[in-house]
Amino acid sequence: MSDRTPPSAGRLLVRGCDVLRVPPTGECEVLRERDIVVADGVIQEIRPARTVGDDEADVIDGRGLLAVPGLVNAHTHSPMVLMRGAAEDVTVEGWFNDRVWPMESNLTPADVRLGARLACAEMIRSGVTTFADHYFFPERIAEAVAETGLRADIAPTYFSSRGQGALEESVRFAEEWHGGAGGRVTVSLGPHAPYTVDDADLRTLAGHARGLGVRMHIHAAEHLEQTRSSLERRGITPVRVLHETGVLEAGALIAHGCGIVEEDLPLLAGYADTAAVACCPKVYLKHALSPLTPVRDLLDAGITVAVGTDGAAGHNTLDVWEALRLVALTQKQAVRDATWMTVSDTLRLALRGGARALGLQDRIGALEPGMRADIVLTDLSGVHCRPLHDPRAALVYSARAADVRTVIVDGRVLLRDGTLLTVDEPALLAEADAVVARILDTSHGKAVQHYAP
Amino acid sequence: MSDRTPPSAGRLLVRGCDVLRVPPTGECEVLRERDIVVADGVIQEIRPARTVGDDEADVIDGRGLLAVPGLVNAHTHSPMVLMRGAAEDVTVEGWFNDRVWPMESNLTPADVRLGARLACAEMIRSGVTTFADHYFFPERIAEAVAETGLRADIAPTYFSSRGQGALEESVRFAEEWHGGAGGRVTVSLGPHAPYTVDDADLRTLAGHARGLGVRMHIHAAEHLEQTRSSLERRGITPVRVLHETGVLEAGALIAHGCGIVEEDLPLLAGYADTAAVACCPKVYLKHALSPLTPVRDLLDAGITVAVGTDGAAGHNTLDVWEALRLVALTQKQAVRDATWMTVSDTLRLALRGGARALGLQDRIGALEPGMRADIVLTDLSGVHCRPLHDPRAALVYSARAADVRTVIVDGRVLLRDGTLLTVDEPALLAEADAVVARILDTSHGKAVQHYAP
Repeated sequence: MSDRTPPSAGRLLVRGCDVLRVPPTGECEVLRERDIVVADGVIQEIRPARTVGDDEADVIDGRGLLAVPGLVNAHTHSPMVLMRGAAEDVTVEGWFNDRVWPMESNLTPADVRLGARLACAEMIRSGVTTFADHYFFPERIAEAVAETGLRADIAPTYFSSRGQGALEESVRFAEEWHGGAGGRVTVSLGPHAPYTVDDADLRTLAGHARGLGVRMHIHAAEHLEQTRSSLERRGITPVRVLHETGVLEAGALIAHGCGIVEEDLPLLAGYADTAAVACCPKVYLKHALSPLTPVRDLLDAGITVAVGTDGAAGHNTLDVWEALRLVALTQKQAVRDATWMTVSDTLRLALRGGARALGLQDRIGALEPGMRADIVLTDLSGVHCRPLHDPRAALVYSARAADVRTVIVDGRVLLRDGTLLTVDEPALLAEADAVVARILDTSHGKAVQHYAP
Repeated sequence: MSDRTPPSAGRLLVRGCDVLRVPPTGECEVLRERDIVVADGVIQEIRPARTVGDDEADVIDGRGLLAVPGLVNAHTHSPMVLMRGAAEDVTVEGWFNDRVWPMESNLTPADVRLGARLACAEMIRSGVTTFADHYFFPERIAEAVAETGLRADIAPTYFSSRGQGALEESVRFAEEWHGGAGGRVTVSLGPHAPYTVDDADLRTLAGHARGLGVRMHIHAAEHLEQTRSSLERRGITPVRVLHETGVLEAGALIAHGCGIVEEDLPLLAGYADTAAVACCPKVYLKHALSPLTPVRDLLDAGITVAVGTDGAAGHNTLDVWEALRLVALTQKQAVRDATWMTVSDTLRLALRGGARALGLQDRIGALEPGMRADIVLTDLSGVHCRPLHDPRAALVYSARAADVRTVIVDGRVLLRDGTLLTVDEPALLAEADAVVARILDTSHGKAVQHYAP
């Protein structure tokens, strides 16, 4: 197991902040003027604010700020920030076959590490403390996570076209990194999708996942046409493929699921304790897809739903505030019910839902004693949030990633009053600028895969 | 005519910025490293950057920033920022009848001025330089606009239930303020909607508008149920009501238009030079409405479409970046075409479309010699925009209102490197906090109107 985490920060005191309480059901609440006491990366106590700090602790002045649990980005491909804005106004097919998969064939392991570091910097700045990643060269991403201090579940992307060597590499990555970086890195096995990975490989990977005690992260039923195509080609839905190959049994995070249909719901409900679907609405709208993830049906069936951004080559940001707002807006419209997907339910989806989707509900997703100290201090004093009738509504509908001031992961301060502490941002940005032209060059005509679901 | 504008800033030089060029058709372009020379509120010249500044000019260092035309918020109710976040998760009927119209009955003229100043501060900070407002106590809004330095078209909201005195007040407001604040304030007449203003009043107001040479700003066909209800009650669509009462002939900005149907298109096309529709998608999604404004049909028929936020009691922000991004995303999905509503077309809609929608296309909407100097300097160097493959895509899909650094309206600097120059922000926010409890109190059971379209 690799561990590049700097020594734990010991004791930390966040003084005088308001605290967002996200209960398992019912309305979220804002607790006024609390001290959050952290030791060894764990929240020890949340108590009414006292006027004096603990002598031995690092004290963060949280007065006037709202502490929220760190956001979870439940589905992304972090290194794709390198292709941000380079694949606009194209069809889904054109996006994959003409832009993204050719560009991805340019990526070296060093590029992936660079892209992951850039993504980590963006996510820290926007209050994302945990992300579920799915990509090539996963060791390089794990190193970036270890170095920058974030928390991540990393799935090594596998296509059957890559062959058995690649499959075995996935398994070795899980053996090496699951539980790494002081527990901040977990691993899921990552077959790309049922249309790029054959049933035999799905079965093999699911068997490994069960053996290793790790979860799986896979794209499935991304849109309705994929479900129809699967039904035509083989008579069963993509979700049933996951069931029949043991993927659901291993515990699966399904990306997108816009093509999940009624007959899939009982299947998924059978694994309600471990199955989850990540909804990333910005990319569905941008790719002109309809319907969207059937969030209401999934929640009604007891299945966990979480919020993701997908990669920045489609989403353009890794901003989970933007993503959760779009979940609320698009889901209200999708079911024609403005009273549904309330402010409290949206926050719960993004926070507790995100934690459950990664199998981390015992560690993160809420600010409570015993949970890992993943804390985001937000500043809702800006004119765009005022008057501040309801901080919960402000979080969902007014606040911006730029309102994040201080970010703590596992008790370690990664962003302090707007300054990144674990990333040399100017150097990183210069490094990224230097590789851009090479990554955008698709004149070679190669691609990592061909899209034909 | 009232004029509280401080003396013009004289000569101004924005040095070394990139400049977004938004042509009437085709792709937007970024011109690299230019100087923008401003005199007497007008752009005199945009020339390749020189290394030395003009001695007599106020010099703004624009190096590393992208100058974009000031954004136009083509439909809002600015004082409603006072009710931001106070009407969440309710039906359209509940929003009007239980929350907003009762709260609005609490508003005094002083509250409206306060709300408008707060709205102006938010809009300046987010790069909105012009807004089309529709509200009560319009003099108080005009004063706020004059004081803060923004540009606005203000329509005094009129319900027939208010009676002839109120109608005549509207006309007097237009006489007093059209062309006011050094030309920065224009007035439109503002019958609320065909379902709250009777045909006789619509005709009378349209006649006044033609006589005064002002435009009209009205809610119509806000959603399809309103169109159906109008067809049932009186056999014609809301747009045909506007036609038959002379509103379209006077030149009309129609808010929302989600219920515009096929038979309305030729009617509107007959006034293509002066008719416009403002699309505010965040509130449609939030209110669970479908379909949205038929933007493609309108543009195909030659009708101007612009981007608005509506009031912050529904939209929660007055952020036109957020609104234009949602127009691009939702319109791609609405017509199931990811290659449509491109980055360039979206920017054109928000900028040139916004200017046309207010009848201001000869003054604003583009950075060109002869246009009024409404200039927004944006900073796309943040990690969420990097690498910056395409600044145009970054504006539509990555940038945030917080990336706005400097805002110039009519040649006067209103925001300089993040500091508001015409608003005492802490005092304003404290003033707003002091009136909140009174405005939210609906225990009196009153309302400004009852919603039954």
